[in-house]
Amino acid sequence: MCSLPVPREPLRRVAVTGGTHGNEMSGVYLARHWLHAPAELQRASFSAVPVLANPAATSSCRRYVDHDLNRTFTSSFLKLTETVKIGVPHSRLHSSRPTPDDPYELQYPELSCQVFLYQRSGEESYNLDSVAKNGLGLELGPQPQGVLRADIFSRMRTLVATVLDFIELFNQGTAFPAFEMEAYRPVGVVDFPRTEAGNLAGTVHPQLQDRDFQPLQPGAPIFQMFSGEDLLYEGESTVYPVFINEAAYYEKGVAFVQTEKFTFTVPAMPALTPAPSPAS
Amino acid sequence: MCSLPVPREPLRRVAVTGGTHGNEMSGVYLARHWLHAPAELQRASFSAVPVLANPAATSSCRRYVDHDLNRTFTSSFLKLTETVKIGVPHSRLHSSRPTPDDPYELQYPELSCQVFLYQRSGEESYNLDSVAKNGLGLELGPQPQGVLRADIFSRMRTLVATVLDFIELFNQGTAFPAFEMEAYRPVGVVDFPRTEAGNLAGTVHPQLQDRDFQPLQPGAPIFQMFSGEDLLYEGESTVYPVFINEAAYYEKGVAFVQTEKFTFTVPAMPALTPAPSPAS
Repeated sequence: MCSLPVPREPLRRVAVTGGTHGNEMSGVYLARHWLHAPAELQRASFSAVPVLANPAATSSCRRYVDHDLNRTFTSSFLKLTETVKIGVPHSRLHSSRPTPDDPYELQYPELSCQVFLYQRSGEESYNLDSVAKNGLGLELGPQPQGVLRADIFSRMRTLVATVLDFIELFNQGTAFPAFEMEAYRPVGVVDFPRTEAGNLAGTVHPQLQDRDFQPLQPGAPIFQMFSGEDLLYEGESTVYPVFINEAAYYEKGVAFVQTEKFTFTVPAMPALTPAPSPAS
Repeated sequence: MCSLPVPREPLRRVAVTGGTHGNEMSGVYLARHWLHAPAELQRASFSAVPVLANPAATSSCRRYVDHDLNRTFTSSFLKLTETVKIGVPHSRLHSSRPTPDDPYELQYPELSCQVFLYQRSGEESYNLDSVAKNGLGLELGPQPQGVLRADIFSRMRTLVATVLDFIELFNQGTAFPAFEMEAYRPVGVVDFPRTEAGNLAGTVHPQLQDRDFQPLQPGAPIFQMFSGEDLLYEGESTVYPVFINEAAYYEKGVAFVQTEKFTFTVPAMPALTPAPSPAS
């Protein structure tokens, strides 16, 4: 099950990126703030470098200029080692995106994040955080495009500080016990109802809007058509929609992503030993 | 006081425009819907034509391509007569924008709109609705850019239907009594706190966010700086902020617009007479 290694030595280099999408203002302005005040990211045991990830898109306050940057980080594109990247790129999804194979990313439950397992083992990732040896994407929201909301900004800042504190504790030799947690994994994608020309024929139903990670029961309304009728969820089992009515996903043909909830065990992380044996 | 004439004959031609800004989806999709189903706009006494106002910006889901279209409708640009335009262009402001000189625009108080008097008599307007003989701009929100929310869409649809019903009643000879109402007029503009390079140094305070048209007292916090400190409102009198943290206004140097509340009398509109005297 474990395809990603549990680190056996301290992490010494951390990159904290924001603004992969230029119209997601919390990440943009946190990165800019840290570039002016990098001391906020520093801890005793590692160096942390803030990065404004997509200056061109940021300048024009658009998600991207030519291609969606957060879809281009394939393994063939770039390989990095020795670096933890904490990406702060996104809007709207109330979640972090760890994999259950990487317990580094799961040890801060006190901030009440939903965990979205968006990639199965063996599939290639394309997100920014995938190019790090130990990557972690944080997504907060919903936040409207082009708007810097103080509440989202503050929560993201606290969340990043908590991740950095965790790395510091790990580096200092803290052991973390195993625990169980709930997470969500995608089981399908639902597009908007559309006209023959491809325009919307309706939009997300008010009873589904703003209810990311809440259960959707068979028979519940999911779309309100401009004609007035409701479209119902015709699946056979309860799902948990996420990315509901995400501005950036209209072009991707996604009105929401269906997920299922499951429980898994995060393995214990033993304390670092001063000189781990390569054969252990 | 009355610089705009009260119509003395029925209105026969009504244009209903949506999508002046291509990323304000309620107007975009209402216009598209009406283009497919124009009967929804028709009443017995006038013809109504739906218009998608800015197809180029709509195609790229941006506010505008080269210039902000809703700033270009000066009198020198275009003059129209005989037409009522009902613009449905905007996001975020919970208001309509009539002038107290034009009682046409004020006779539907049952929908609980705030009235924003954005132009004093004698100043030139630049908005789309200003090119009509009797123009009316409707703004609903807040709505995030690029997202079609069913609740906003439905409310805007109902509001436009109510305006059309009003024109129908007027054309049919209904008299409307005078009444008093509250409105808001701008008294100042406040920019975000900025760094020397022009970037944000803070953003709208959580205690001001989402409180359009609510009173702001002297000494209340208006910005939360990235450094942690709060900036307070240092004015001497209560104001009513509108356009708070509007995505489209970052580039215009507007964090919010200060307004004052005032009361004015909407004059009675007598019933149309079959053949009004030009000398009356």
